[in-house]
Amino acid sequence: MSSSDIFIGETIGTAILILLGGGVVAAVVLKASKARNAGWLAITFGWGFAVLTAVYTSAPLSGAHLNPAVTLSLALKKNGIDWSDVPIYWGGQVLGAMIGAALVWVAYYGQFHAHLTDKEIVGGPGAEATKAVEAREAAAGPVLGVFSTGPEIRNAVQNLATEIIGTFVLVIAVLTQGLNDGGKGLGTLGAMITALVVVGIGLSLGGPTGYAINPARDLGPRIVHALLPLPNKGGSDWGYAWVPVVGPLIGAAIAAGVYNVAFV
Amino acid sequence: MSSSDIFIGETIGTAILILLGGGVVAAVVLKASKARNAGWLAITFGWGFAVLTAVYTSAPLSGAHLNPAVTLSLALKKNGIDWSDVPIYWGGQVLGAMIGAALVWVAYYGQFHAHLTDKEIVGGPGAEATKAVEAREAAAGPVLGVFSTGPEIRNAVQNLATEIIGTFVLVIAVLTQGLNDGGKGLGTLGAMITALVVVGIGLSLGGPTGYAINPARDLGPRIVHALLPLPNKGGSDWGYAWVPVVGPLIGAAIAAGVYNVAFV
Amino acid sequence: MSSSDIFIGETIGTAILILLGGGVVAAVVLKASKARNAGWLAITFGWGFAVLTAVYTSAPLSGAHLNPAVTLSLALKKNGIDWSDVPIYWGGQVLGAMIGAALVWVAYYGQFHAHLTDKEIVGGPGAEATKAVEAREAAAGPVLGVFSTGPEIRNAVQNLATEIIGTFVLVIAVLTQGLNDGGKGLGTLGAMITALVVVGIGLSLGGPTGYAINPARDLGPRIVHALLPLPNKGGSDWGYAWVPVVGPLIGAAIAAGVYNVAFV
Amino acid sequence: MSSSDIFIGETIGTAILILLGGGVVAAVVLKASKARNAGWLAITFGWGFAVLTAVYTSAPLSGAHLNPAVTLSLALKKNGIDWSDVPIYWGGQVLGAMIGAALVWVAYYGQFHAHLTDKEIVGGPGAEATKAVEAREAAAGPVLGVFSTGPEIRNAVQNLATEIIGTFVLVIAVLTQGLNDGGKGLGTLGAMITALVVVGIGLSLGGPTGYAINPARDLGPRIVHALLPLPNKGGSDWGYAWVPVVGPLIGAAIAAGVYNVAFV
Repeated sequence: MSSSDIFIGETIGTAILILLGGGVVAAVVLKASKARNAGWLAITFGWGFAVLTAVYTSAPLSGAHLNPAVTLSLALKKNGIDWSDVPIYWGGQVLGAMIGAALVWVAYYGQFHAHLTDKEIVGGPGAEATKAVEAREAAAGPVLGVFSTGPEIRNAVQNLATEIIGTFVLVIAVLTQGLNDGGKGLGTLGAMITALVVVGIGLSLGGPTGYAINPARDLGPRIVHALLPLPNKGGSDWGYAWVPVVGPLIGAAIAAGVYNVAFV
Repeated sequence: MSSSDIFIGETIGTAILILLGGGVVAAVVLKASKARNAGWLAITFGWGFAVLTAVYTSAPLSGAHLNPAVTLSLALKKNGIDWSDVPIYWGGQVLGAMIGAALVWVAYYGQFHAHLTDKEIVGGPGAEATKAVEAREAAAGPVLGVFSTGPEIRNAVQNLATEIIGTFVLVIAVLTQGLNDGGKGLGTLGAMITALVVVGIGLSLGGPTGYAINPARDLGPRIVHALLPLPNKGGSDWGYAWVPVVGPLIGAAIAAGVYNVAFV
Repeated sequence: MSSSDIFIGETIGTAILILLGGGVVAAVVLKASKARNAGWLAITFGWGFAVLTAVYTSAPLSGAHLNPAVTLSLALKKNGIDWSDVPIYWGGQVLGAMIGAALVWVAYYGQFHAHLTDKEIVGGPGAEATKAVEAREAAAGPVLGVFSTGPEIRNAVQNLATEIIGTFVLVIAVLTQGLNDGGKGLGTLGAMITALVVVGIGLSLGGPTGYAINPARDLGPRIVHALLPLPNKGGSDWGYAWVPVVGPLIGAAIAAGVYNVAFV
Repeated sequence: MSSSDIFIGETIGTAILILLGGGVVAAVVLKASKARNAGWLAITFGWGFAVLTAVYTSAPLSGAHLNPAVTLSLALKKNGIDWSDVPIYWGGQVLGAMIGAALVWVAYYGQFHAHLTDKEIVGGPGAEATKAVEAREAAAGPVLGVFSTGPEIRNAVQNLATEIIGTFVLVIAVLTQGLNDGGKGLGTLGAMITALVVVGIGLSLGGPTGYAINPARDLGPRIVHALLPLPNKGGSDWGYAWVPVVGPLIGAAIAAGVYNVAFV
């Protein structure tokens, strides 16, 4: 694969991943969406099919890492990719994630505005000041959730552990792909298995932190959230931003170690 | 493929697509259906398995486009189909969509009647005049939704953008099918991937406009809605009808352009 | 395939089909089940995975028809199965369906008893006579639904039409299986596609009649319902029993005709 | 396969199985989880994708039994595995299940604590004594359910029968895998079919006992529940612990017998 194919593939693929992944959160949480309150199962399947579509589409160009943690594990793996390709993958992934988040904003433009300014949700101009602040914060939380993850219980050690465990599961499944089906590469079945593993991780390990399991998936959209002109959007919770970056990288490194020792 | 195989395949396939796709909306929204209120996840999976069944069944005859936007992209694609076949595909698709919509009406005949005339829903003859008009409109909306899509927030620019983005995702996944699995053609895996991509688009990008992403899927059933003798059915919202025709065609053209530049 | 393989395969396969298919209805409707009120999506996926398991398990022995309508279509199909095999298939299917229904009763023994005798549901001995009768009827309806299908709106013409349409979709998908994937036979992908088509039919066409789309699936368990010693079980609705037998056979014959004309 | 590959594969695979399987129960039942009250469909799909991930990951090392009942059936099967390998499989499975259960505790550490000590759920220090005991028992039940199964109606005969039937379905599907797809081994399709069969068993036969269908899945986590320092955790229900061990082993033996007689 040429460097430009890698960069273009990762950019397109991660853009589709975040467009559909952020999209399903927008669909479920924002006002004036047909999917409002469709529930956690809708969110986890939505992210899974986001992975499916993104992996399938970008596999012919870049091999569809779409995740800096996956790229790290494939560099750490015995006979893995060249370290010199890592920055190209990572660059495409972060750029793609930002493009995808911006496209969610375009597709749900009216819904974002309705959610953040609606009188029923955030109160009208006549609302009592303190209440209005609370209401705006309550509306801003789900909107940030369209872009980035956040913990239900804020505890750096547990949050990091949960992200490490979730990413370990994802990466060990990705690494064993070469050992199944005679190493025929990703194709349709590889895209499907990865997608359904991600649905599984979401259902089983998403409860505490919202399963970033991908540094680009969390960081790119958080930057876009900080840049976008959304009314009453509140802060981008930068204090938590390191957890979904560091945790997945550690989880991926552990998975690569286990793979190199036990599977090769 | 002969012209008659193309026409018959697209007619049968699109009829099954709309029978099952319109059917799931009828199942979820109409009175006296066992699936009433089964939710957005049921609707998106229902449309996905409609695609699965329709693509699988018609693939041996016509290659299973079932969507004028897909046909357009395959004509625009480098080394794509002949432009002279495009009208045959489009004709079969619109005819099939109309047949499918009529079959939904047959399968849910009693449910349509119960929904549109039930006293609890639209009020009895003694109901106050203004209220009865409102109630009829409230009942007519979901019934039109069995046939055609409509926006939650009516804004031509955003609605068009959402349909363009959704169709882009569908078409880029369809176009890359030839690059995966050694170009073995659609078959079971191709039908499955397309179906699950459509579930994903529905979950992630269906919130604002109901994801037509297919001009025939929206236009054919809207014509049938205008023709059917449904009591109190209300208007067919022709003012919106151009969006789910134009948007998908633009999205498909963009996807073909990206494909020709980045993937070939 | 030998006659005994056909008979044993269809008996085992249809028993598994009805065990899991009837089981999911029991799981969702009966008192004291962990899955109570899990909804229509659970029922349709449960039936789909029942098809998956049953087809997969019996395919090596009998080819996994598991449905008299499917067997009929494969006899009517050009170069189809021998008519002399049809009674062997049908016999195994009805016997298997009865065994499966009896196993549902074993697996949910306590739940059936709790549902049909619980004071909260059917009233205690001191309850007013008329109310107790109504309550027992209200409890008996879902219990019959564990075994057989019934219409939401009782209209023989529409009910028959809905079953014809649903079975047509199932059978045309089954018949085109030989045209996809180079005719490699059922295997895993064939079982999966059939299962997901059945989920789709359930979601999209199950609303009016509960989608029997299989004479053995409805008739066998209805006989078992009539025979089992369930307290307060009520009647077995024999007046409706012909619809889910005749409708699917007509639908299958139409599908075979369309297949012979358009696909061969 | 070497003994060490078997042991390591089964340990890793069963750990992932229980991490994701116990995880989805924790996600749905514990306080302060994003997936709280996501329902039975989420639990059954979560366990299914747990099977998918675990089978897929461990198949290259050990063939992915991950279940003492499956191992027993493969030893009883004609031309099955060596009996001398059985203790190695069983040892890895129980150890892996214990590791997986401990990892659920790590990933949901704060959620366990919040659930078992929260004032709203178990009452504060000022709560009336009897009520506080009841509240603690009500909170402890779901927490034990994260680790082990339990019956809705406690009846040893029915509970055993339900586990026998459920495991029979699982094992007959696993045993016929060698007869489908030309015996190409597990791979992606084998992992998928097993996963979806398990979703089906959960939906259809999980209502009465919670479908252990695997002695290690129930026993290993129950031991961990007894050992973990969870506040107010209550007892580990050892009186029921034999049912999900004995029932699955009987069901697997019956399935192996049916397979040897009817399929070989």
